[in-house]
Amino acid sequence: MGIHTYFYSLNDLERIIRCPGRFKLQEHSVSAHSWKVVQYAKTLADIEESHGVTVDWKKLYEITSSHDYGEIFIGDIKTPVKHYSLELRAMLQQVEEGMVAHFIDEHIPEEFQAIFRRQLREGKDDSVEGRILEVADKMDQIYEAFAELQLGNTEKEFITMYRNALIKIKGIQLHCVDYFLQHILPDIVQEGSHSPVDFEKITNEALSS
Amino acid sequence: MGIHTYFYSLNDLERIIRCPGRFKLQEHSVSAHSWKVVQYAKTLADIEESHGVTVDWKKLYEITSSHDYGEIFIGDIKTPVKHYSLELRAMLQQVEEGMVAHFIDEHIPEEFQAIFRRQLREGKDDSVEGRILEVADKMDQIYEAFAELQLGNTEKEFITMYRNALIKIKGIQLHCVDYFLQHILPDIVQEGSHSPVDFEKITNEALSS
Amino acid sequence: MGIHTYFYSLNDLERIIRCPGRFKLQEHSVSAHSWKVVQYAKTLADIEESHGVTVDWKKLYEITSSHDYGEIFIGDIKTPVKHYSLELRAMLQQVEEGMVAHFIDEHIPEEFQAIFRRQLREGKDDSVEGRILEVADKMDQIYEAFAELQLGNTEKEFITMYRNALIKIKGIQLHCVDYFLQHILPDIVQEGSHSPVDFEKITNEALSS
Amino acid sequence: MGIHTYFYSLNDLERIIRCPGRFKLQEHSVSAHSWKVVQYAKTLADIEESHGVTVDWKKLYEITSSHDYGEIFIGDIKTPVKHYSLELRAMLQQVEEGMVAHFIDEHIPEEFQAIFRRQLREGKDDSVEGRILEVADKMDQIYEAFAELQLGNTEKEFITMYRNALIKIKGIQLHCVDYFLQHILPDIVQEGSHSPVDFEKITNEALSS
Amino acid sequence: MGIHTYFYSLNDLERIIRCPGRFKLQEHSVSAHSWKVVQYAKTLADIEESHGVTVDWKKLYEITSSHDYGEIFIGDIKTPVKHYSLELRAMLQQVEEGMVAHFIDEHIPEEFQAIFRRQLREGKDDSVEGRILEVADKMDQIYEAFAELQLGNTEKEFITMYRNALIKIKGIQLHCVDYFLQHILPDIVQEGSHSPVDFEKITNEALSS
Amino acid sequence: MGIHTYFYSLNDLERIIRCPGRFKLQEHSVSAHSWKVVQYAKTLADIEESHGVTVDWKKLYEITSSHDYGEIFIGDIKTPVKHYSLELRAMLQQVEEGMVAHFIDEHIPEEFQAIFRRQLREGKDDSVEGRILEVADKMDQIYEAFAELQLGNTEKEFITMYRNALIKIKGIQLHCVDYFLQHILPDIVQEGSHSPVDFEKITNEALSS
Repeated sequence: MGIHTYFYSLNDLERIIRCPGRFKLQEHSVSAHSWKVVQYAKTLADIEESHGVTVDWKKLYEITSSHDYGEIFIGDIKTPVKHYSLELRAMLQQVEEGMVAHFIDEHIPEEFQAIFRRQLREGKDDSVEGRILEVADKMDQIYEAFAELQLGNTEKEFITMYRNALIKIKGIQLHCVDYFLQHILPDIVQEGSHSPVDFEKITNEALSS
Repeated sequence: MGIHTYFYSLNDLERIIRCPGRFKLQEHSVSAHSWKVVQYAKTLADIEESHGVTVDWKKLYEITSSHDYGEIFIGDIKTPVKHYSLELRAMLQQVEEGMVAHFIDEHIPEEFQAIFRRQLREGKDDSVEGRILEVADKMDQIYEAFAELQLGNTEKEFITMYRNALIKIKGIQLHCVDYFLQHILPDIVQEGSHSPVDFEKITNEALSS
Repeated sequence: MGIHTYFYSLNDLERIIRCPGRFKLQEHSVSAHSWKVVQYAKTLADIEESHGVTVDWKKLYEITSSHDYGEIFIGDIKTPVKHYSLELRAMLQQVEEGMVAHFIDEHIPEEFQAIFRRQLREGKDDSVEGRILEVADKMDQIYEAFAELQLGNTEKEFITMYRNALIKIKGIQLHCVDYFLQHILPDIVQEGSHSPVDFEKITNEALSS
Repeated sequence: MGIHTYFYSLNDLERIIRCPGRFKLQEHSVSAHSWKVVQYAKTLADIEESHGVTVDWKKLYEITSSHDYGEIFIGDIKTPVKHYSLELRAMLQQVEEGMVAHFIDEHIPEEFQAIFRRQLREGKDDSVEGRILEVADKMDQIYEAFAELQLGNTEKEFITMYRNALIKIKGIQLHCVDYFLQHILPDIVQEGSHSPVDFEKITNEALSS
Repeated sequence: MGIHTYFYSLNDLERIIRCPGRFKLQEHSVSAHSWKVVQYAKTLADIEESHGVTVDWKKLYEITSSHDYGEIFIGDIKTPVKHYSLELRAMLQQVEEGMVAHFIDEHIPEEFQAIFRRQLREGKDDSVEGRILEVADKMDQIYEAFAELQLGNTEKEFITMYRNALIKIKGIQLHCVDYFLQHILPDIVQEGSHSPVDFEKITNEALSS
Repeated sequence: MGIHTYFYSLNDLERIIRCPGRFKLQEHSVSAHSWKVVQYAKTLADIEESHGVTVDWKKLYEITSSHDYGEIFIGDIKTPVKHYSLELRAMLQQVEEGMVAHFIDEHIPEEFQAIFRRQLREGKDDSVEGRILEVADKMDQIYEAFAELQLGNTEKEFITMYRNALIKIKGIQLHCVDYFLQHILPDIVQEGSHSPVDFEKITNEALSS
């Protein structure tokens, strides 16, 4: 079979739940996460364009929508595992890429193989689009953690997730990062001001770290 | 508040379940559906390009990713309701557009309002991109119905959904529709050949209707 | 087929979730809501009787148990949509009634059609029974909103729901409304006194609005 | 606290799932079951009235809507347990009644205690209303079992449930039972004719047992 | 059929949810509870051994892993029911034992019947192993209640569950109980110190009761 | 904190779902799986003992109950990933062991560290107990796959899972394996004889492979 196999496989990502094992009031599938990343990235790219930056929309489309497709093969491996050692991380990425490559060889008709190889590559490179993807991906971690903490979830991992995502974002050079830090983040902190967690403190610590 | 309100609202679409009321073995959120439409559309556009058609990727990105955002305001209204009368359908679309417009006026900063108005407009126009969106949206109905029927779900509405989506697709003039009918649909029928439903018959009836 | 179709269709209302899209700690189906309305209405009618009011129990039975049956056809359309304009609201009600009428014509044997038409009519008229139904329906909104807010759900829509339902109830002339305001509502406020939400304030504002 | 405690407790029955332990494709709460029993009973009583039988609608309302309220205190005890011995069954019923009585004494204001005692009594007596309740309660077992079996659930307990409920119903002297056997049951068998289970055979065996 | 019937039946305990009817943020199946009891008991027995107590590991293995198997037949009957009267409690235990005995007679090959009778007996006797099982079983009630209360669940039943389990544990003569009270319980209280519930007060009250 | 951290962490395994991504009619948590493995192993060890083999029950208790505890740290990594290369598999096992060791160092009091290191080691060694654990673990894969396939789940991965587990079991030298193949497996095949899948054929192919 051909592209049908790829299309039908997309369903599986609705059944891979992010952050497995942790208690969550709101569960998120990899599909739903992927869609939100696509949406954030669109607005982030609009902000870049408003500052005169040229955005390759085809590339941005490809890398944001497919950035977690490989999880169909390896699942949502826990972050601490991925970061256990550079060696393991490299090997896991190699496995994921190997399985994606094997899937393309086996199921995608020859005339589309080059396209699929490009689309399903790791997208987080140093280009504008790659950096936008990185920001959008981390923004969703901020929103996922924020929603849990604001509702009274006491899992400390969500504070770590919020903080680490923020630290990662602030280190990326993009106009949209400036906009996020100046216009969006303050609204997040403000919305969380009545919750059990002191978002203002956590946020300031992360920003000044 | 500003764009934060928009970003945080995306979460709500993970909680709107498509095809409410019907028994389903696999439930799909509007978010997950939206992501699959984005994915299908990408490959459909690749097929168009391979036939020399020019695709406006920025437009395609905008209209596919946002095509059901308005359901945040009105929910997943049942298809028979939407098609009850042209008058009602027009009015519901007007309400949805009114609520989207109101949301933009209230929450989106002035410098982005024009962008959001363009992105959250009804995307299914006569352009190549609008037609690709229509095909991708209907393809997901085919896949949703196919998965249920193949697993033994006896709800007749899924046969209707499969058939109507197929009839709609075959009437759209695109190279990718030809590809779908010649290369993807036969694989679907083949995969369903051991299931309780006679996909070959239903498919042929729809194609010759 | 005949009445079997009607009986079997009742199942579908267990799969229509009220207040779609919003984050809820406790989800409620239309079936469960309908049952609670039946239960509240019974006690409300008992209170009316204890004040010498005559209650038509058959009518009360019919209108409370069936008051949301029409949602099988149109789903749980979001309240803001229903209230968008008087014109739209009238049209949606007309669609729902049209679909109910069509269902009766198609499935209910002729000798029962008159009965079903009476039972599945809109029950919230000016009669004692119609007003009791209105109170019972709004009381369930109060209880649904109360449960969420008390558990720390931060969705502001539940404050709006609580307030609007209370304002609606207090405007209805019934002995049971007096009883509710004097004997039941204070217990609700008391039970919520340790929760993050200031029920006393919200309640007093609604009562004096 | 008073009637508020009773009203708020109704929520708990949405969380008691019928037939615990068995694999089910469709789960049913006691609330949803109770509502369906109310609905069936209404139509069954209409059928009795059409044959000139007088129905006490207030009594029917009370006993159908409250018939499983006692499960709040004892849960959905498995049928084989209830039927283990007449002695145990009597004792369990006594416990349930004791706990209901204790709840009324503690929470219901004195002026309503007599009403609540009447409403929350065991309703399945020999009156027309009591027999209608028995039929409606068993009809829901038929529908619950039918839905599972038709969808391919292989749990044999659902065949037993279907059969036993049918045997119970056919032994009750009511016009609506005749109607059910002649007009509704054949439609059930017909709807199940394409499923893996031979409903015609099971039904005929139960009817001739 | 033989032991297959027993092995396949284990699945059913994944579908019996503990504490039915109550609102819970985290639901626990009887299977998951049973596994946690096995785990707690292992460490409790290690503590006994470290004080020179001899532990019969085979017996401990048998009684901890199987201690709730009988719920397959009678479900998770609510605690208040079980404690309603000594007479009822004895009768329910007799029913459960009768059903287990009947299951063994019917399904277990003769050469294993004695083993199964021993394993599926009530294990909470006065032996070291029986007392460890009692402590481990109550410890899981403490952890289940603690998790709910710490997350803001306002059901008072969880305070009662926490308190009663603690009172039961402190009355059992075991080295591991001393360890629990001195080294584990303080950590629980400490972890709950930022939650809406005053664990220190509840704990001290229970310990001094 | 000390052993409390370990006890409380057990909860997390109720939220790690086995076989992530695949459509399942019955989901199984790692906790529930672990409990079933404990139960199977008990009976398998009884069979060994009945053939005069000496079983170290303490060791069997330790290794069966804890055999998947490490998944708290790395999640349920998909089988194809684990088997991608011997090198990756060794590295993943090393990571899991490293994280378990780190957890013990950080949270378990010194006097218990040796015990925990022994209990949380990889248990599938060549001893009788290690081989029983391997059989029990694979038996649960057989039961999980069997339940899905019998209910009409069309995921081919469950046929692979059933076959591979059977091939693995038949290669292990134990009296209980003989018993399983002669007395339990035929009952499984028999129970599945009316299902859409040809268990007899799949089973025979696996046994003769």
